[in-house]
Amino acid sequence: MPNSGTLYGIGVGPGDPELLTLKAVYRLSRCPLLAYPCNPQGISQARGVVAGHLRHQPEELSIPLAFDGDREAASLAYDRAASALAAALQAGRDVALLCEGDPLLFGSFIYLLQRLGDRFPVEVIPGIPALAASAAAARLPLTRGDQALALLPGNSSDDDIRTALQRFATVVFYKPGRQRPRLLQLIAAAGRGDQWVQVNSASRPDQQVSRAGEADADADAPGPYFSVLLVSSNHTPHHRVPPPCP
Amino acid sequence: MPNSGTLYGIGVGPGDPELLTLKAVYRLSRCPLLAYPCNPQGISQARGVVAGHLRHQPEELSIPLAFDGDREAASLAYDRAASALAAALQAGRDVALLCEGDPLLFGSFIYLLQRLGDRFPVEVIPGIPALAASAAAARLPLTRGDQALALLPGNSSDDDIRTALQRFATVVFYKPGRQRPRLLQLIAAAGRGDQWVQVNSASRPDQQVSRAGEADADADAPGPYFSVLLVSSNHTPHHRVPPPCP
Repeated sequence: MPNSGTLYGIGVGPGDPELLTLKAVYRLSRCPLLAYPCNPQGISQARGVVAGHLRHQPEELSIPLAFDGDREAASLAYDRAASALAAALQAGRDVALLCEGDPLLFGSFIYLLQRLGDRFPVEVIPGIPALAASAAAARLPLTRGDQALALLPGNSSDDDIRTALQRFATVVFYKPGRQRPRLLQLIAAAGRGDQWVQVNSASRPDQQVSRAGEADADADAPGPYFSVLLVSSNHTPHHRVPPPCP
Repeated sequence: MPNSGTLYGIGVGPGDPELLTLKAVYRLSRCPLLAYPCNPQGISQARGVVAGHLRHQPEELSIPLAFDGDREAASLAYDRAASALAAALQAGRDVALLCEGDPLLFGSFIYLLQRLGDRFPVEVIPGIPALAASAAAARLPLTRGDQALALLPGNSSDDDIRTALQRFATVVFYKPGRQRPRLLQLIAAAGRGDQWVQVNSASRPDQQVSRAGEADADADAPGPYFSVLLVSSNHTPHHRVPPPCP
Protein backbone atom coordinates (compact mmCIF):
# COMPACT_ATOMS: atom_id res chain seq x y z
CA MET A 1 0.00 0.00 0.00
CA PRO A 2 1.67 3.23 -1.11
CA ASN A 3 2.26 5.90 1.51
CA SER A 4 0.77 3.83 4.29
CA GLY A 5 2.48 3.81 7.66
CA THR A 6 4.52 0.90 8.98
CA LEU A 7 3.47 -1.25 11.90
CA TYR A 8 6.44 -1.80 14.21
CA GLY A 9 6.08 -4.72 16.59
CA ILE A 10 8.51 -3.76 19.32
CA GLY A 11 9.71 -6.25 21.91
CA VAL A 12 10.34 -4.37 25.15
CA GLY A 13 11.91 -7.32 26.93
CA PRO A 14 11.21 -8.78 30.36
CA GLY A 15 10.74 -5.65 32.42
CA ASP A 16 14.05 -3.91 33.13
CA PRO A 17 13.98 -0.73 31.01
CA GLU A 18 17.72 -1.20 30.35
CA LEU A 19 16.96 -4.45 28.56
CA LEU A 20 15.38 -2.60 25.65
CA THR A 21 17.49 -2.69 22.52
CA LEU A 22 18.89 0.47 20.98
CA LYS A 23 16.72 -0.25 17.96
CA ALA A 24 13.57 -0.34 20.06
CA VAL A 25 14.40 2.96 21.75
CA TYR A 26 15.30 4.56 18.42
CA ARG A 27 12.04 3.41 16.85
CA LEU A 28 9.90 4.36 19.84
CA SER A 29 11.16 7.89 19.71
CA ARG A 30 10.06 8.27 16.09
CA CYS A 31 6.55 6.80 15.99
CA PRO A 32 3.70 9.27 16.31
CA LEU A 33 1.34 6.56 17.62
CA LEU A 34 2.14 4.29 20.54
CA ALA A 35 -0.10 1.24 21.05
CA TYR A 36 0.02 -1.38 23.81
CA PRO A 37 -2.11 -3.99 25.48
CA CYS A 38 -3.50 -3.17 28.91
CA ASN A 39 -5.57 -4.82 31.62
CA PRO A 40 -9.17 -3.84 32.42
CA GLN A 41 -7.87 -1.13 34.75
CA GLY A 42 -5.96 0.40 31.82
CA ILE A 43 -2.58 -0.58 33.23
CA SER A 44 0.04 -1.70 30.72
CA GLN A 45 3.25 -3.40 31.85
CA ALA A 46 4.83 -2.76 28.45
CA ARG A 47 4.00 0.96 28.62
CA GLY A 48 5.62 1.07 32.04
CA VAL A 49 8.83 -0.43 30.70
CA VAL A 50 9.29 2.25 28.03
CA ALA A 51 8.05 5.21 30.09
CA GLY A 52 11.53 6.55 30.77
CA HIS A 53 12.55 6.27 27.13
CA LEU A 54 9.89 8.47 25.53
CA ARG A 55 11.43 11.75 24.45
CA HIS A 56 8.35 12.93 22.59
CA GLN A 57 4.64 12.88 23.30
CA PRO A 58 3.10 10.31 20.99
CA GLU A 59 -0.60 9.75 20.70
CA GLU A 60 -1.43 6.62 22.67
CA LEU A 61 -3.80 3.75 22.05
CA SER A 62 -4.34 1.20 24.79
CA ILE A 63 -5.75 -2.16 23.80
CA PRO A 64 -7.72 -3.82 26.60
CA LEU A 65 -6.90 -7.53 26.57
CA ALA A 66 -8.24 -9.74 29.35
CA PHE A 67 -10.65 -12.49 28.50
CA ASP A 68 -10.24 -15.33 30.99
CA GLY A 69 -10.20 -17.83 28.17
CA ASP A 70 -13.19 -16.32 26.33
CA ARG A 71 -12.05 -16.78 22.72
CA GLU A 72 -14.86 -14.84 21.17
CA ALA A 73 -14.25 -11.82 23.35
CA ALA A 74 -10.54 -12.02 22.52
CA SER A 75 -11.18 -12.21 18.81
CA LEU A 76 -13.51 -9.23 19.00
CA ALA A 77 -10.99 -7.18 20.96
CA TYR A 78 -8.26 -7.91 18.41
CA ASP A 79 -10.59 -7.05 15.54
CA ARG A 80 -11.38 -3.75 17.16
CA ALA A 81 -7.72 -2.96 17.84
CA ALA A 82 -6.79 -3.94 14.28
CA SER A 83 -9.38 -1.50 12.90
CA ALA A 84 -8.02 1.34 14.97
CA LEU A 85 -4.45 0.58 13.95
CA ALA A 86 -5.44 0.16 10.29
CA ALA A 87 -7.00 3.61 10.27
CA ALA A 88 -3.76 5.14 11.51
CA LEU A 89 -1.61 3.14 9.10
CA GLN A 90 -3.87 4.00 6.20
CA ALA A 91 -3.46 7.66 7.06
CA GLY A 92 0.28 7.20 6.66
CA ARG A 93 1.22 7.13 10.32
CA ASP A 94 3.79 4.75 11.73
CA VAL A 95 2.61 2.76 14.72
CA ALA A 96 4.80 1.38 17.52
CA LEU A 97 3.05 -1.60 19.06
CA LEU A 98 4.66 -2.61 22.34
CA CYS A 99 5.02 -6.24 23.37
CA GLU A 100 6.43 -7.67 26.58
CA GLY A 101 9.36 -9.99 25.94
CA ASP A 102 9.64 -10.88 22.27
CA PRO A 103 6.73 -10.07 19.93
CA LEU A 104 6.67 -13.52 18.31
CA LEU A 105 6.97 -15.67 21.45
CA PHE A 106 3.48 -15.81 22.97
CA GLY A 107 2.99 -12.13 22.15
CA SER A 108 -0.41 -10.55 21.60
CA PHE A 109 1.30 -8.85 18.66
CA ILE A 110 0.86 -12.11 16.74
CA TYR A 111 -2.91 -11.68 16.57
CA LEU A 112 -2.54 -8.18 15.17
CA LEU A 113 0.15 -9.28 12.71
CA GLN A 114 -2.29 -11.88 11.44
CA ARG A 115 -4.95 -9.21 10.92
CA LEU A 116 -2.73 -6.51 9.42
CA GLY A 117 0.37 -8.20 8.00
CA ASP A 118 -1.03 -8.69 4.52
CA ARG A 119 -2.23 -5.13 4.17
CA PHE A 120 0.54 -3.00 5.66
CA PRO A 121 4.33 -2.97 5.93
CA VAL A 122 5.33 -4.63 9.17
CA GLU A 123 8.68 -4.68 10.90
CA VAL A 124 9.36 -6.79 13.96
CA ILE A 125 11.99 -5.63 16.44
CA PRO A 126 12.89 -8.63 18.57
CA GLY A 127 13.04 -8.33 22.35
CA ILE A 128 14.76 -10.23 25.14
CA PRO A 129 12.48 -13.18 25.87
CA ALA A 130 11.57 -14.11 29.44
CA LEU A 131 13.40 -17.41 29.05
CA ALA A 132 16.72 -15.63 28.43
CA ALA A 133 16.16 -13.16 31.27
CA SER A 134 15.16 -15.97 33.63
CA ALA A 135 18.20 -18.05 32.76
CA ALA A 136 20.38 -14.96 33.28
CA ALA A 137 18.82 -14.35 36.69
CA ALA A 138 19.47 -17.97 37.69
CA ARG A 139 22.83 -18.09 35.88
CA LEU A 140 21.57 -21.36 34.42
CA PRO A 141 22.99 -22.55 31.09
CA LEU A 142 20.02 -23.37 28.85
CA THR A 143 21.78 -25.30 26.08
CA ARG A 144 25.35 -26.21 25.26
CA GLY A 145 26.93 -28.61 22.82
CA ASP A 146 24.31 -31.00 21.47
CA GLN A 147 21.62 -30.22 24.03
CA ALA A 148 18.07 -29.32 23.04
CA LEU A 149 15.48 -27.11 24.70
CA ALA A 150 11.68 -27.31 24.88
CA LEU A 151 9.50 -24.32 25.66
CA LEU A 152 5.99 -25.18 26.83
CA PRO A 153 3.08 -23.18 28.19
CA GLY A 154 2.13 -24.21 31.72
CA ASN A 155 -1.22 -25.60 30.59
CA SER A 156 0.31 -28.23 28.24
CA SER A 157 -1.01 -31.77 28.54
CA ASP A 158 0.55 -34.29 30.92
CA ASP A 159 1.62 -36.35 27.92
CA ASP A 160 3.39 -33.48 26.15
CA ILE A 161 5.11 -32.51 29.38
CA ARG A 162 6.29 -36.08 30.05
CA THR A 163 7.72 -36.38 26.54
CA ALA A 164 9.54 -33.06 26.86
CA LEU A 165 10.98 -34.03 30.25
CA GLN A 166 12.16 -37.38 28.87
CA ARG A 167 13.72 -35.97 25.71
CA PHE A 168 15.09 -32.50 26.38
CA ALA A 169 18.07 -31.45 28.46
CA THR A 170 16.24 -28.25 29.29
CA VAL A 171 12.49 -27.69 29.55
CA VAL A 172 11.14 -24.20 30.12
CA PHE A 173 7.58 -23.61 31.25
CA TYR A 174 6.01 -20.21 30.64
CA LYS A 175 3.26 -19.02 32.95
CA PRO A 176 3.18 -21.99 35.31
CA GLY A 177 0.62 -20.12 37.45
CA ARG A 178 -2.07 -22.43 38.80
CA GLN A 179 -0.45 -25.36 36.96
CA ARG A 180 2.67 -25.16 39.10
CA PRO A 181 1.81 -28.01 41.52
CA ARG A 182 0.97 -30.32 38.59
CA LEU A 183 4.17 -29.35 36.76
CA LEU A 184 6.30 -30.02 39.84
CA GLN A 185 4.65 -33.43 40.25
CA LEU A 186 5.40 -34.34 36.63
CA ILE A 187 8.96 -33.04 36.99
CA ALA A 188 9.49 -35.20 40.08
CA ALA A 189 7.90 -38.23 38.39
CA ALA A 190 10.36 -37.81 35.50
CA GLY A 191 13.21 -38.11 37.99
CA ARG A 192 14.15 -34.46 37.59
CA GLY A 193 12.86 -33.14 40.89
CA ASP A 194 16.27 -31.72 41.81
CA GLN A 195 16.74 -29.87 38.52
CA TRP A 196 14.26 -27.02 38.63
CA VAL A 197 14.65 -23.32 39.14
CA GLN A 198 11.80 -20.86 39.28
CA VAL A 199 12.29 -17.22 38.42
CA ASN A 200 9.61 -14.69 39.24
CA SER A 201 9.66 -11.21 37.73
CA ALA A 202 12.97 -11.75 35.95
CA SER A 203 14.95 -8.50 35.65
CA ARG A 204 12.41 -6.50 37.66
CA PRO A 205 13.10 -4.97 41.08
CA ASP A 206 11.04 -7.74 42.73
CA GLN A 207 12.91 -10.56 40.94
CA GLN A 208 13.00 -13.82 42.90
CA VAL A 209 14.93 -17.00 42.18
CA SER A 210 13.98 -20.20 44.01
CA ARG A 211 15.40 -23.68 43.51
CA ALA A 212 14.45 -27.26 44.10
CA GLY A 213 15.15 -28.27 47.66
CA GLU A 214 15.14 -24.77 49.09
CA ALA A 215 13.17 -24.22 52.26
CA ASP A 216 10.76 -21.73 50.71
CA ALA A 217 10.15 -23.76 47.56
CA ASP A 218 6.57 -24.73 48.41
CA ALA A 219 5.51 -27.27 45.78
CA ASP A 220 1.80 -26.67 46.38
CA ALA A 221 1.80 -22.94 45.85
CA PRO A 222 0.74 -21.53 42.49
CA GLY A 223 3.24 -19.33 40.66
CA PRO A 224 2.66 -15.60 40.13
CA TYR A 225 1.89 -14.25 36.66
CA PHE A 226 5.42 -13.19 35.68
CA SER A 227 7.03 -16.50 36.37
CA VAL A 228 9.14 -19.00 34.45
CA LEU A 229 9.91 -22.53 35.60
CA LEU A 230 13.14 -23.98 34.21
CA VAL A 231 14.14 -27.64 34.40
CA SER A 232 17.66 -28.41 33.28
CA SER A 233 20.28 -31.08 33.56
CA ASN A 234 22.70 -28.15 33.62
CA HIS A 235 21.36 -27.25 37.04
CA THR A 236 23.46 -28.55 39.86
CA PRO A 237 22.54 -28.40 43.55
CA HIS A 238 25.58 -26.25 44.34
CA HIS A 239 24.70 -23.89 41.51
CA ARG A 240 23.83 -20.85 43.61
CA VAL A 241 23.41 -17.22 42.87
CA PRO A 242 26.34 -15.39 44.44
CA PRO A 243 25.74 -12.46 46.75
CA PRO A 244 24.76 -9.28 44.89
CA CYS A 245 27.71 -7.59 43.23
CA PRO A 246 28.69 -4.13 44.47
CA MET B 1 35.99 -13.05 47.09
CA PRO B 2 36.40 -9.53 48.51
CA ASN B 3 37.46 -6.80 46.11
CA SER B 4 37.57 -9.13 43.15
CA GLY B 5 36.23 -7.94 39.82
CA THR B 6 32.93 -9.07 38.32
CA LEU B 7 32.66 -11.22 35.22
CA TYR B 8 29.95 -9.84 32.95
CA GLY B 9 28.66 -12.26 30.35
CA ILE B 10 27.26 -9.89 27.74
CA GLY B 11 24.93 -11.06 25.00
CA VAL B 12 25.54 -8.90 21.93
CA GLY B 13 22.61 -10.33 19.97
CA PRO B 14 22.47 -11.65 16.42
CA GLY B 15 24.67 -9.17 14.59
CA ASP B 16 22.91 -5.83 14.10
CA PRO B 17 24.72 -3.41 16.47
CA GLU B 18 21.34 -1.75 17.17
CA LEU B 19 20.11 -5.00 18.68
CA LEU B 20 22.37 -4.60 21.68
CA THR B 21 20.52 -3.72 24.86
CA LEU B 22 21.09 -0.46 26.67
CA LYS B 23 22.40 -2.51 29.58
CA ALA B 24 25.01 -4.18 27.40
CA VAL B 25 26.22 -0.85 25.99
CA TYR B 26 26.29 0.70 29.44
CA ARG B 27 28.30 -2.19 30.84
CA LEU B 28 30.68 -2.38 27.89
CA SER B 29 31.63 1.22 28.30
CA ARG B 30 32.67 0.65 31.92
CA CYS B 31 34.72 -2.54 31.84
CA PRO B 32 38.50 -2.10 31.66
CA LEU B 33 38.95 -5.55 30.09
CA LEU B 34 37.07 -6.76 27.02
CA ALA B 35 37.24 -10.49 26.22
CA TYR B 36 35.74 -12.36 23.28
CA PRO B 37 36.07 -15.59 21.35
CA CYS B 38 37.76 -15.42 17.97
CA ASN B 39 38.61 -17.73 15.09
CA PRO B 40 42.17 -18.90 14.28
CA GLN B 41 42.66 -15.75 12.20
CA GLY B 42 41.88 -13.65 15.28
CA ILE B 43 38.57 -12.45 13.88
CA SER B 44 35.68 -12.08 16.33
CA GLN B 45 32.11 -11.59 15.16
CA ALA B 46 31.08 -10.42 18.64
CA ARG B 47 33.87 -7.82 18.74
CA GLY B 48 32.68 -6.55 15.37
CA VAL B 49 29.13 -6.09 16.67
CA VAL B 50 30.21 -3.84 19.54
CA ALA B 51 32.95 -1.93 17.69
CA GLY B 52 30.82 1.19 17.21
CA HIS B 53 29.75 1.24 20.84
CA LEU B 54 33.13 1.42 22.54
CA ARG B 55 33.70 4.92 23.90
CA HIS B 56 36.86 4.00 25.76
CA GLN B 57 39.91 1.93 24.98
CA PRO B 58 39.68 -1.21 27.05
CA GLU B 59 42.41 -3.78 27.23
CA GLU B 60 41.39 -6.68 25.00
CA LEU B 61 41.74 -10.41 25.35
CA SER B 62 40.80 -12.61 22.41
CA ILE B 63 40.06 -16.25 23.10
CA PRO B 64 40.83 -18.51 20.13
CA LEU B 65 38.06 -21.10 19.90
CA ALA B 66 38.03 -23.48 16.94
CA PHE B 67 38.49 -27.17 17.51
CA ASP B 68 36.65 -29.08 14.81
CA GLY B 69 35.12 -31.33 17.43
CA ASP B 70 38.37 -31.91 19.33
CA ARG B 71 37.07 -31.92 22.91
CA GLU B 72 40.44 -32.02 24.56
CA ALA B 73 41.68 -29.01 22.62
CA ALA B 74 38.47 -27.15 23.50
CA SER B 75 38.78 -27.97 27.18
CA LEU B 76 42.39 -26.79 27.18
CA ALA B 77 41.51 -23.53 25.42
CA TYR B 78 38.77 -22.80 27.96
CA ASP B 79 41.11 -23.64 30.85
CA ARG B 80 43.67 -21.23 29.48
CA ALA B 81 41.10 -18.47 28.93
CA ALA B 82 39.69 -19.02 32.42
CA SER B 83 43.16 -18.59 33.93
CA ALA B 84 43.70 -15.32 32.12
CA LEU B 85 40.28 -14.00 33.15
CA ALA B 86 40.78 -15.20 36.74
CA ALA B 87 44.02 -13.24 36.99
CA ALA B 88 42.24 -10.06 35.94
CA LEU B 89 39.26 -10.67 38.25
CA GLN B 90 41.54 -11.46 41.18
CA ALA B 91 43.28 -8.15 40.59
CA GLY B 92 39.93 -6.45 41.06
CA ARG B 93 39.21 -5.71 37.42
CA ASP B 94 35.76 -6.11 35.88
CA VAL B 95 35.69 -8.19 32.70
CA ALA B 96 33.18 -7.88 29.85
CA LEU B 97 32.98 -11.21 28.06
CA LEU B 98 31.16 -10.87 24.74
CA CYS B 99 28.83 -13.58 23.45
CA GLU B 100 26.95 -13.71 20.17
CA GLY B 101 23.22 -14.02 20.69
CA ASP B 102 22.38 -14.89 24.27
CA PRO B 103 25.18 -16.04 26.60
CA LEU B 104 23.26 -19.04 27.95
CA LEU B 105 21.88 -20.41 24.65
CA PHE B 106 24.73 -22.36 23.04
CA GLY B 107 27.18 -19.66 24.15
CA SER B 108 30.86 -20.33 24.75
CA PHE B 109 30.33 -18.18 27.84
CA ILE B 110 28.82 -21.27 29.49
CA TYR B 111 32.17 -23.04 29.61
CA LEU B 112 33.80 -20.06 31.29
CA LEU B 113 30.90 -19.64 33.70
CA GLN B 114 31.42 -23.26 34.72
CA ARG B 115 35.10 -22.60 35.39
CA LEU B 116 34.77 -19.24 37.14
CA GLY B 117 31.21 -19.00 38.50
CA ASP B 118 32.02 -20.45 41.89
CA ARG B 119 35.01 -18.22 42.50
CA PHE B 120 33.95 -14.79 41.25
CA PRO B 121 30.85 -12.63 41.07
CA VAL B 122 29.15 -13.17 37.73
CA GLU B 123 26.39 -11.20 36.07
CA VAL B 124 24.72 -12.32 32.88
CA ILE B 125 23.25 -9.70 30.55
CA PRO B 126 20.87 -11.51 28.22
CA GLY B 127 21.00 -10.87 24.48
CA ILE B 128 18.58 -11.25 21.58
CA PRO B 129 18.82 -14.92 20.59
CA ALA B 130 19.15 -15.90 16.93
CA LEU B 131 15.77 -17.61 17.10
CA ALA B 132 14.01 -14.34 17.93
CA ALA B 133 15.93 -12.40 15.29
CA SER B 134 15.23 -15.08 12.68
CA ALA B 135 11.52 -15.16 13.46
CA ALA B 136 11.46 -11.36 13.24
CA ALA B 137 13.18 -11.46 9.84
CA ALA B 138 10.63 -14.00 8.58
CA ARG B 139 7.75 -12.36 10.47
CA LEU B 140 6.92 -15.86 11.63
CA PRO B 141 5.00 -16.31 14.90
CA LEU B 142 6.94 -18.83 17.00
CA THR B 143 4.35 -19.65 19.65
CA ARG B 144 0.85 -18.46 20.48
CA GLY B 145 -1.87 -19.75 22.78
CA ASP B 146 -1.07 -23.29 23.86
CA GLN B 147 1.66 -23.96 21.29
CA ALA B 148 5.07 -25.29 22.27
CA LEU B 149 8.50 -24.79 20.73
CA ALA B 150 11.52 -27.07 20.45
CA LEU B 151 15.04 -25.77 19.85
CA LEU B 152 17.48 -28.36 18.52
CA PRO B 153 21.05 -28.25 17.25
CA GLY B 154 21.33 -29.36 13.64
CA ASN B 155 23.30 -32.46 14.61
CA SER B 156 20.50 -33.95 16.74
CA SER B 157 19.62 -37.60 16.16
CA ASP B 158 16.97 -38.62 13.62
CA ASP B 159 14.87 -39.95 16.46
CA ASP B 160 14.96 -36.72 18.49
CA ILE B 161 14.16 -34.70 15.39
CA ARG B 162 11.20 -36.93 14.49
CA THR B 163 9.77 -36.63 17.99
CA ALA B 164 10.14 -32.86 17.97
CA LEU B 165 8.47 -32.57 14.55
CA GLN B 166 5.59 -34.78 15.70
CA ARG B 167 5.00 -33.01 18.98
CA PHE B 168 5.83 -29.32 18.61
CA ALA B 169 4.00 -26.61 16.69
CA THR B 170 7.34 -24.94 16.07
CA VAL B 171 10.75 -26.56 15.77
CA VAL B 172 13.85 -24.40 15.45
CA PHE B 173 17.16 -25.83 14.27
CA TYR B 174 20.34 -23.97 15.13
CA LYS B 175 23.34 -24.36 12.85
CA PRO B 176 21.80 -26.66 10.26
CA GLY B 177 25.03 -26.40 8.22
CA ARG B 178 25.99 -29.70 6.63
CA GLN B 179 22.95 -31.33 8.27
CA ARG B 180 20.53 -29.26 6.21
CA PRO B 181 19.72 -31.91 3.55
CA ARG B 182 19.04 -34.50 6.28
CA LEU B 183 16.89 -32.05 8.25
CA LEU B 184 14.82 -31.16 5.18
CA GLN B 185 14.28 -34.87 4.48
CA LEU B 186 13.06 -35.48 8.03
CA ILE B 187 10.86 -32.39 7.86
CA ALA B 188 9.29 -33.62 4.62
CA ALA B 189 8.85 -37.15 6.03
CA ALA B 190 6.99 -35.65 8.99
CA GLY B 191 4.52 -34.08 6.55
CA ARG B 192 5.78 -30.59 7.26
CA GLY B 193 7.67 -29.96 4.05
CA ASP B 194 5.68 -26.80 3.33
CA GLN B 195 6.25 -25.27 6.75
CA TRP B 196 9.89 -24.32 6.83
CA VAL B 197 11.66 -21.01 6.59
CA GLN B 198 15.41 -20.57 6.59
CA VAL B 199 17.03 -17.36 7.74
CA ASN B 200 20.69 -16.73 7.06
CA SER B 201 22.57 -13.96 8.83
CA ALA B 202 19.49 -12.66 10.65
CA SER B 203 19.64 -8.90 11.25
CA ARG B 204 22.93 -8.52 9.33
CA PRO B 205 23.30 -6.60 6.06
CA ASP B 206 23.49 -9.92 4.16
CA GLN B 207 20.31 -11.32 5.77
CA GLN B 208 18.46 -13.82 3.56
CA VAL B 209 15.06 -15.42 4.07
CA SER B 210 14.09 -18.44 1.98
CA ARG B 211 10.96 -20.56 2.24
CA ALA B 212 9.74 -24.00 1.35
CA GLY B 213 8.68 -24.12 -2.27
CA GLU B 214 10.71 -21.15 -3.42
CA ALA B 215 12.75 -21.57 -6.55
CA ASP B 216 16.09 -20.98 -4.86
CA ALA B 217 15.38 -23.26 -1.91
CA ASP B 218 17.82 -26.01 -2.92
CA ALA B 219 17.20 -28.91 -0.54
CA ASP B 220 20.60 -30.46 -1.16
CA ALA B 221 22.68 -27.42 -0.35
CA PRO B 222 24.26 -27.10 3.09
CA GLY B 223 23.39 -24.03 5.14
CA PRO B 224 25.93 -21.31 5.94
CA TYR B 225 27.27 -20.90 9.47
CA PHE B 226 24.92 -18.13 10.63
CA SER B 227 21.73 -19.88 9.73
CA VAL B 228 18.53 -20.92 11.47
CA LEU B 229 15.93 -23.29 10.09
CA LEU B 230 12.41 -22.78 11.43
CA VAL B 231 9.54 -25.22 10.98
CA SER B 232 6.16 -23.97 12.13
CA SER B 233 2.50 -24.67 11.69
CA ASN B 234 2.14 -20.89 11.92
CA HIS B 235 3.84 -20.64 8.56
CA THR B 236 1.45 -20.32 5.67
CA PRO B 237 2.43 -20.43 2.00
CA HIS B 238 1.17 -16.90 1.42
CA HIS B 239 3.13 -15.67 4.40
CA ARG B 240 5.61 -13.47 2.54
CA VAL B 241 7.97 -10.78 3.57
CA PRO B 242 6.64 -7.48 2.26
CA PRO B 243 8.86 -5.23 0.18
CA PRO B 244 11.39 -3.32 2.29
CA CYS B 245 9.88 -0.42 4.14
CA PRO B 246 10.99 3.07 3.19
